[in-house]
Amino acid sequence: MREATTISEYIASTAAAVEDALQSALPAGWDVPVKLREAMMYSLNAGGKRLRPMLVLAAAEAVRGERDAADAAMPIACAIEMVHTYSLVHDDLPAMDDDDFRRGKPTNHKVYGEALAILAGDALLTHAFYCIAQAAKNGRISAGTALAVTEDLARLAGAPGMVGGQAADILGEQGVTSLSELEYIHLHKTSDLIAFSLQAGGRAGGATDAQLEALARFGSNLGLAFQIQDDILDLVGDEAKLGKKTNSDVERLKVTYPYLIGLEASRAEVGRLTGDAKKALLSARLAKPERLLQIADYLMGRDH
Amino acid sequence: MREATTISEYIASTAAAVEDALQSALPAGWDVPVKLREAMMYSLNAGGKRLRPMLVLAAAEAVRGERDAADAAMPIACAIEMVHTYSLVHDDLPAMDDDDFRRGKPTNHKVYGEALAILAGDALLTHAFYCIAQAAKNGRISAGTALAVTEDLARLAGAPGMVGGQAADILGEQGVTSLSELEYIHLHKTSDLIAFSLQAGGRAGGATDAQLEALARFGSNLGLAFQIQDDILDLVGDEAKLGKKTNSDVERLKVTYPYLIGLEASRAEVGRLTGDAKKALLSARLAKPERLLQIADYLMGRDH
Repeated sequence: MREATTISEYIASTAAAVEDALQSALPAGWDVPVKLREAMMYSLNAGGKRLRPMLVLAAAEAVRGERDAADAAMPIACAIEMVHTYSLVHDDLPAMDDDDFRRGKPTNHKVYGEALAILAGDALLTHAFYCIAQAAKNGRISAGTALAVTEDLARLAGAPGMVGGQAADILGEQGVTSLSELEYIHLHKTSDLIAFSLQAGGRAGGATDAQLEALARFGSNLGLAFQIQDDILDLVGDEAKLGKKTNSDVERLKVTYPYLIGLEASRAEVGRLTGDAKKALLSARLAKPERLLQIADYLMGRDH
Repeated sequence: MREATTISEYIASTAAAVEDALQSALPAGWDVPVKLREAMMYSLNAGGKRLRPMLVLAAAEAVRGERDAADAAMPIACAIEMVHTYSLVHDDLPAMDDDDFRRGKPTNHKVYGEALAILAGDALLTHAFYCIAQAAKNGRISAGTALAVTEDLARLAGAPGMVGGQAADILGEQGVTSLSELEYIHLHKTSDLIAFSLQAGGRAGGATDAQLEALARFGSNLGLAFQIQDDILDLVGDEAKLGKKTNSDVERLKVTYPYLIGLEASRAEVGRLTGDAKKALLSARLAKPERLLQIADYLMGRDH
């Protein structure tokens, strides 16, 4: 990756590097049914902010203070993007959120059909673990790091993490009433993978236990702020910039932060959580924390 | 596990030990939505032959020649049963095979709804990788074994393995015509996880590379024989013993071995493949191959 100066340049160059790495993440020599490979790559290549892989790479670099750390962490960055992508493909299914468009493009099942969309999601999730194990085999990360990252991912993407948050969200459609219930959903559906990304990047960069703990707190707060900002943008955002319809939460009678505590209080909460995140990060005494701090500010101010 | 003498006793006592271990595989202390946990355990506890975990345990014991080897391999045995179970939950979905019953019980989505069935499957797949990583953390298997097993599982259960076979099966419903196409489906949909089980058990037992290769060949042949036997039983089996309707392949116009080469030739093929499997196994010079040989004979003669 080329050295970037501004945060916008950093985001763009990191996203490009991740997208480049994703192209060869599924070995070309593997005998995979053409349509399945296509369906997997369709959603992997559907754009998005590439936030989670960027956090992996930025955390690795922040801990070690060297750009090489980001290269070592790239397989983990690809893995988390695969997990995030699979979760979107499954979330969009008719039996779940039933979405026809994502980021302005038809969703996976609209293009490939439900059966293949389910299987493409399954294959992406499975392949994430392959990428991590391979990174150890190729010597890019240590065996200990690969195992710790595998365990973290399986927990934070699994029943007590992301899938749990999604299940609570679906079960709660019959009536989420309290802020604590909504916080459970947001924390697990969104924050857990963001916290994972920061910790995993930290592990690849050789972080101490105290630094890993601080990165996880940074991630948890940042993730919750990110999700509340999403709720806000769904209410007041610009459809063209978002690449999806606004007011979808209202139409689905989804309980959100603005619904529960109001728009202004939600905005204040985003600010407070971002502040807490930055405080947690600064306590970690990382070699080069600046980029992560910039990302936090950028996310708070984003309009898409 | 108690020492078993006959193969029937061995199968029963192994299944009981696996079922016992599965009860605590998902940590009780984890904050998981109650319905999600229920949906996961419903399908994990829905019975079945527990063939794949049995092969893991039997392979570990065959390589090391000691019963203790099976105990070390138990987390891998649980992991493969979770992957197998998730694949059944997703296969049964309306968008896939649309089955209402499995092993005489309502399928997961009939009890918990489609959304939760998709998520329960996702969570089971994810948790399989947790079990393997944890086994290394707890010192039951080495870090090297855990990483190799993770990589094998992610490949053989993923796009070039089980999911690829399932995708080919679904795509082929528009017309599988050749034996080689059908063999691709069977090999990946069924054999890959069976070969994985034998190799993973072998790794846990400390097998040499040559032994791992022989176990994989044993597994591949055994898996293909197993699937052809399934095709045969769907045609001529006893519904009460099978716990599902026979002739479902015919009703769905599914192309099977009996359809392509006839019933008698299919039976002969099961015999030939089982023989090849046993020959491959004997070439590995395992410490105690007897149980694996008995399992091969048992599977060939089974009526359910």
